[in-house]
Amino acid sequence: MERLVCLFCQKKHPLNLFDPFCPRCGEPMLIAYSPRPRKILPDCPLSLEKFRHFLPLPAVDRSLSLGEGSTPLVPLFQLRKKYNLSSVLAKNETMNPTHSFKDRGTAVVIQRAVALGIKAVGTVSTGNMAASTAAYAAKAGLKSHILLKADTSPEKFMSTLVYGAKVLKMEGDYGQLFRQSFILGRKKGIYFANSVDPLRIEGYKTASYEIFLSLGRRVPQHIFVPVSSGGNLVGMIKGFMDLKEEGWIPEMPNFIGVQAEGCPPLARAFRQEKEKFERVAVARTIAHAISNPDPPAGNLVLKLIRETGGAILDVTDKEILHAQKELASLEGIFADPASATTLAALIKIQNQPQWTVSKLKRKLGGDIVLVITGSGLKTLSESKLTKYMARP
Amino acid sequence: MERLVCLFCQKKHPLNLFDPFCPRCGEPMLIAYSPRPRKILPDCPLSLEKFRHFLPLPAVDRSLSLGEGSTPLVPLFQLRKKYNLSSVLAKNETMNPTHSFKDRGTAVVIQRAVALGIKAVGTVSTGNMAASTAAYAAKAGLKSHILLKADTSPEKFMSTLVYGAKVLKMEGDYGQLFRQSFILGRKKGIYFANSVDPLRIEGYKTASYEIFLSLGRRVPQHIFVPVSSGGNLVGMIKGFMDLKEEGWIPEMPNFIGVQAEGCPPLARAFRQEKEKFERVAVARTIAHAISNPDPPAGNLVLKLIRETGGAILDVTDKEILHAQKELASLEGIFADPASATTLAALIKIQNQPQWTVSKLKRKLGGDIVLVITGSGLKTLSESKLTKYMARP
Repeated sequence: MERLVCLFCQKKHPLNLFDPFCPRCGEPMLIAYSPRPRKILPDCPLSLEKFRHFLPLPAVDRSLSLGEGSTPLVPLFQLRKKYNLSSVLAKNETMNPTHSFKDRGTAVVIQRAVALGIKAVGTVSTGNMAASTAAYAAKAGLKSHILLKADTSPEKFMSTLVYGAKVLKMEGDYGQLFRQSFILGRKKGIYFANSVDPLRIEGYKTASYEIFLSLGRRVPQHIFVPVSSGGNLVGMIKGFMDLKEEGWIPEMPNFIGVQAEGCPPLARAFRQEKEKFERVAVARTIAHAISNPDPPAGNLVLKLIRETGGAILDVTDKEILHAQKELASLEGIFADPASATTLAALIKIQNQPQWTVSKLKRKLGGDIVLVITGSGLKTLSESKLTKYMARP
Repeated sequence: MERLVCLFCQKKHPLNLFDPFCPRCGEPMLIAYSPRPRKILPDCPLSLEKFRHFLPLPAVDRSLSLGEGSTPLVPLFQLRKKYNLSSVLAKNETMNPTHSFKDRGTAVVIQRAVALGIKAVGTVSTGNMAASTAAYAAKAGLKSHILLKADTSPEKFMSTLVYGAKVLKMEGDYGQLFRQSFILGRKKGIYFANSVDPLRIEGYKTASYEIFLSLGRRVPQHIFVPVSSGGNLVGMIKGFMDLKEEGWIPEMPNFIGVQAEGCPPLARAFRQEKEKFERVAVARTIAHAISNPDPPAGNLVLKLIRETGGAILDVTDKEILHAQKELASLEGIFADPASATTLAALIKIQNQPQWTVSKLKRKLGGDIVLVITGSGLKTLSESKLTKYMARP
């Protein structure tokens, strides 16, 4: 049976979904489980089935799937030309069932929750993760509980309510809600699969396997990923680590985590070469999906980025809006501001080659992947699009 | 080279994308082109490539694709149980690049437009088709022109503007804009690929091929499709006709076209057993995506439905909202009101078996497919969700 491991102290603990943090370090723990031999099963219809040897799922229950994953890796020819890049591709995660990457993680969470006889799941989110959790819980016939801040606007959680989720408004900031959710979960028997849940992170690995397959079983040179809690970046790095363990790729890709300048706890720590980040006092950015002043997997992200030769940087709201427009008007992909940070960061690095040399292990080149985590449709009012859309 | 055919007078005409209507009957014409032998190429990564033997595409240019198609066919186990159905599945078209089925059609349109050296495309739409056309035109580096009514609200076309489309506001109702667009198109050299464009309709066939493959090369008994202009229904019927011609399926599925009671030109004509529909004077329904009082392919839909033993019916806004909630809260699929008509119609028929016997060639049974054409995310404010979401 798999266990949880803390990558800071290397201690292993039994899998406890209601408290997945290291009792010694306080850091989020990851699944430690590598049965052999592992194979990709490309002919299975479901993404979870294709990669089940790499997932902590003894069996896959098809009735719980919404058809997540198997999103396209789209070559961006116009951006390549305009910015004089070697090769750039978008992993379009908005083509998931609830239009964000969160579905990959939720799918694994729900498989395991049902197998364990858990009757209620929950999450702390006002956006993509709330809708995803509510949708998969509905499909599985589980109750779902969404914790959000008391001042959240009704529009924000409308797309969660439709799935029949129970919304609990609470006082406090994101960090407080995050901690309270586990206390509530243990008391009420609700499995709170939050952003850095170890099963959720396992689901995010599947995007990495798909990128590998889409490139003809090759590894890209660089992967740009928006960073909020850090769960997705940790999952995607773990996915490529699996491929390297199997001997299928010679080396890890360079991961570039991207934050907004208005909420840059990890970019700041990376710049200052610190091992631990410091909480941001005031977060202010249009990229709400990554506006997380106290990312639970932040230190883990810093550690993994250091160990794999990647980087973390931040971009301004102006750069984000510019990149959002470039992605839509040159490549037909309408990303939310959080996802547009990936292109903003790529443009920034391309314009500052000296930065690359000093911070990144490798020069920009080869296949560059931008992970488009969420859809612009969910943030129409936040993007101030009209300002940028004026045409003669 | 393929030609256009009018199914009413059987006359063939050269392919003219700027005027695809029969000069004698005034009805929309379809592509007549069946090279042999035709094979499905399941190992190709792109949907257009998989089915290119069935499409009017001499070659597929990968640089123009956004990864459309290959959407999942999701079994709906909870609905099946609750409504005592044999087997019911959702073809989730919201998992396309711009979150609607329109992308299948636009993908074919743009392939051909680029091959023909056309520099500008356009469409008449305030919703899904506008966003889809604008996105694919952007990807291909073409100009796009969206015609819409002068009183359309800015929110409605925000997701079109982001792609850099040129929006032309015009006086008149949908029918007038539709006719004017072709005049404008011929004058300015803009290819208006509207709802019943023959290439667009070819693209819609691919959903049928995918349903056939997902069911293990079998034909479902019933397919429920929302009907607005009629383009999607005509395309999907044509797709199964191809499969029947190849001898791969023994008979056609029963297609059930669904309209809203507030705008039911085809349901009314079908009920009255008329060959031609009459324009609806006042359209009033929350299902805006199918609120089309004068559907251009209406008579063609009536003809094809008659010939294949299907039916057309209408459902009330109340039934639509109920179905929308059932789909989300039992199956985790957030459909727009237009798509929710499919489940509303299924529930209606299941509750009125005498209707089925009198109008449908077959009793409900076997595999029943609901085509979920668009995402509820695009119609959050229209769905009056809050009214239905109250929980104790």
